[in-house]
Amino acid sequence: METKTPVKSKPYLSELVGELSMQEYNLFTSDEFVNLVESLNKEKNNLTEIEKKEVELSMEEIEKKKKIPADEYEAYAKLTSINQGIWEEAKAKNDFSIIKDGLEKIFNYNKKFAEYRRKDEKNLYDVLLNDYEKGMDTEKLDIFFSELKKEIVPFLKKIQEKKKSLKEEDKLNDPVDEDIQMKFAKYLAAYVGFDFEKGLVETSEHPFTLNLNKNDVRLTTNNKRNMPFSTVFSIIHEAGHGIYEQQTADNLIDTLLGSGGSMGLHESQSRFMENIVGRNKAFWKPLYKKAMEFYPFLKNIDFEEFIKQINKIEPELIRTEADELTYSLHIMLRYEIEKMIFAGEVSIDDLPKIWNQKMVEYLGIEPKNDAEGLMQDIHWYCGLVGYFPSYAIGNAYASQIYNTMKKDFDVDKALENQDLKKITDWLGEKIHKYGRLKDTPVIIKEVTGEELNPKYYIEYLKEKYSKIYQI
Amino acid sequence: METKTPVKSKPYLSELVGELSMQEYNLFTSDEFVNLVESLNKEKNNLTEIEKKEVELSMEEIEKKKKIPADEYEAYAKLTSINQGIWEEAKAKNDFSIIKDGLEKIFNYNKKFAEYRRKDEKNLYDVLLNDYEKGMDTEKLDIFFSELKKEIVPFLKKIQEKKKSLKEEDKLNDPVDEDIQMKFAKYLAAYVGFDFEKGLVETSEHPFTLNLNKNDVRLTTNNKRNMPFSTVFSIIHEAGHGIYEQQTADNLIDTLLGSGGSMGLHESQSRFMENIVGRNKAFWKPLYKKAMEFYPFLKNIDFEEFIKQINKIEPELIRTEADELTYSLHIMLRYEIEKMIFAGEVSIDDLPKIWNQKMVEYLGIEPKNDAEGLMQDIHWYCGLVGYFPSYAIGNAYASQIYNTMKKDFDVDKALENQDLKKITDWLGEKIHKYGRLKDTPVIIKEVTGEELNPKYYIEYLKEKYSKIYQI
Repeated sequence: METKTPVKSKPYLSELVGELSMQEYNLFTSDEFVNLVESLNKEKNNLTEIEKKEVELSMEEIEKKKKIPADEYEAYAKLTSINQGIWEEAKAKNDFSIIKDGLEKIFNYNKKFAEYRRKDEKNLYDVLLNDYEKGMDTEKLDIFFSELKKEIVPFLKKIQEKKKSLKEEDKLNDPVDEDIQMKFAKYLAAYVGFDFEKGLVETSEHPFTLNLNKNDVRLTTNNKRNMPFSTVFSIIHEAGHGIYEQQTADNLIDTLLGSGGSMGLHESQSRFMENIVGRNKAFWKPLYKKAMEFYPFLKNIDFEEFIKQINKIEPELIRTEADELTYSLHIMLRYEIEKMIFAGEVSIDDLPKIWNQKMVEYLGIEPKNDAEGLMQDIHWYCGLVGYFPSYAIGNAYASQIYNTMKKDFDVDKALENQDLKKITDWLGEKIHKYGRLKDTPVIIKEVTGEELNPKYYIEYLKEKYSKIYQI
Repeated sequence: METKTPVKSKPYLSELVGELSMQEYNLFTSDEFVNLVESLNKEKNNLTEIEKKEVELSMEEIEKKKKIPADEYEAYAKLTSINQGIWEEAKAKNDFSIIKDGLEKIFNYNKKFAEYRRKDEKNLYDVLLNDYEKGMDTEKLDIFFSELKKEIVPFLKKIQEKKKSLKEEDKLNDPVDEDIQMKFAKYLAAYVGFDFEKGLVETSEHPFTLNLNKNDVRLTTNNKRNMPFSTVFSIIHEAGHGIYEQQTADNLIDTLLGSGGSMGLHESQSRFMENIVGRNKAFWKPLYKKAMEFYPFLKNIDFEEFIKQINKIEPELIRTEADELTYSLHIMLRYEIEKMIFAGEVSIDDLPKIWNQKMVEYLGIEPKNDAEGLMQDIHWYCGLVGYFPSYAIGNAYASQIYNTMKKDFDVDKALENQDLKKITDWLGEKIHKYGRLKDTPVIIKEVTGEELNPKYYIEYLKEKYSKIYQI
């Protein structure tokens, strides 16, 4: 659908996909399946470790679906589908009023569904947070984001102060043919450890990673002629996702566990590759000459200057264009708004104003309109509520894992020696091979010795960017 | 599987495909489905024309499968699958004895199955001929091939005599980069009328056409660096198949009728494009300069010489490398052998000898071994018995259709005016739009006013090659 399908085939294929999704839902909620899972659940002791986890995950899914009346579930599914087109229109016309009702309904459904499903969660919002990141709740995230806010917001202000005295130019946007960008993208994917015997790279409008199975992992990138480094960091990011999938254990194929873990843990692997590896001076040192073969304009750019260029801090209105430092502030803003909505502290009408106020407070810039403000991301409009925090958690996990890895070996040295395998082997052994067999909090605890701790993320950011901006 | 699947994913995907095939077979032979089709068959008068034909085709399939005991069907399916690997080994080792038993079993199963299914067919072999080409039987094919033999075998001898006095060189095999060959291939596919909004082109080991639906038709080609014209005629051939699929009527989508008709009729459309259009002087006249942009070495080849080059007659041992004139002689040989086998006139042990004798008789050349003789094609070894004649019938249909088309408009002029649409519109209106709604004999009769008649094919070949070889 996203890479190859001829344009006139798309409506038909959409219908087929819709039909298959419905059949999957029907299978999953059928009495036959539910009874099977429940009876297996009663004799857990006779199951293997893998089977036990499969039953556990299935029970969770069944519980989730059983508590929501089928007619409401269906109405909600339709709403999320219809909203997509309305959101596109509203964004294009820059008119929030077009999608306002649709958004309000989404939030109301999500509150209602959370009420149906709530057990002993302290806050209603926690039900959804736990969906996307098992074990996560408002209490933990409040601590997490308050640390971030306390440290990163003033740190960013300092950098912005310093930037006034610097003449920063964009030097990396010379046009490069799409074909050549693609060749470099494939080179880089292989370089960081993506195995082309178990996967491939194509182009699509928005980059993504898809696993058919661990031996057939498909990445995409988007080669934009005038932004040759867009594809560079995008492919390293997706390769991080892809290597995770490729390194899940062989015996998890064909089980419910044969893919990467929670959304936050998955994002930690892609962010690790993209930022901690991909924007690292030690990574580019042995690679810079090779990069010039693909992008000859780099010959005119001094290596030290290049490293500064790929690590420039520049607050942006749009989350997906944010740099490494400001990215999580975008997420913090969304988290705070979701929390307010679930606490009933804000009306839909006030959202645009609140959004813009927070942008000014955290990033020092203000959207000129809602298209570049509240309407920039599709997530809420198609039902992804409670999902955003995973992005920030992923970044924090990445730094926390990096901190442990550095104790085991000299990561910079491995990068300088072009020994990426040392890094991916380590990640494979400690994280990837488990697939969904272990929950994320367990893995994080086992690998790093503690729970999610924002300290490492904050330290990593401050140390790196203090050096780059000499503050 | 053939174009994109990463190498390590293929075994897993093969298993999935096997599983889906089995499920399809089970659905198709289930009591529920059979009862539904049979009850619909009883109230044909209440059905639309499309539904009626769907029921008719389903009844035929059900009959075919019901008459064969399930255990024998399964054993045969396994045999054809296992044989593939054994055939590969036997061919690679050039040792017929390795696959001899496997081949004998195939023929025995096919005879047995044909006995089970035989109704009033004069010859047992007719049961299979009718499977691949409805309405076809030994009586018709005997006449068809005896005409061919009478006319083409001596005509070929004359050409071979003439060739002795000619110094024919291969001038079209300058190396060209695969990328550029692919660009030319896509240019040519679009040029002859393949619609890229409803399809695409990729590469694979063996070229083929696959229709997911009429708006998603996928062609492949194989760009060989040292044979730049291999992809040219291959892509024009596949585009002929593809245009057929793309031009089936919209209201046949999602029915059993939404793809091209019999194998012979389908092949007539690809051969029409490849040979009657693609090797035509009038086709290349307005295109030759453009071709030079892709293949610059053509600048050194005079246009008249180029036309001779792409229409060279050269008896080959291998069917798939045969030229337009000798191609059907390869098929005739296979037809005669299949007939002998079904009549019990030949033992497996004698096949290599008979094959080679016939090659000498019809083409004047003798295989040095069975790998380039009896074992060259996979068809028989994996169960395709009675299938080969469709190739020759396709060629003959193409000429017969061409003869009618020329009465309606000046085809050469359309080619010279680069008005390929005139040709594809005509084919679309007379043939393609019907999909499988009408049987091939009906279409041929309606379009050309008569049944399959080898006269047009023989005339076409003799007229064209008399001119080229000036005999």
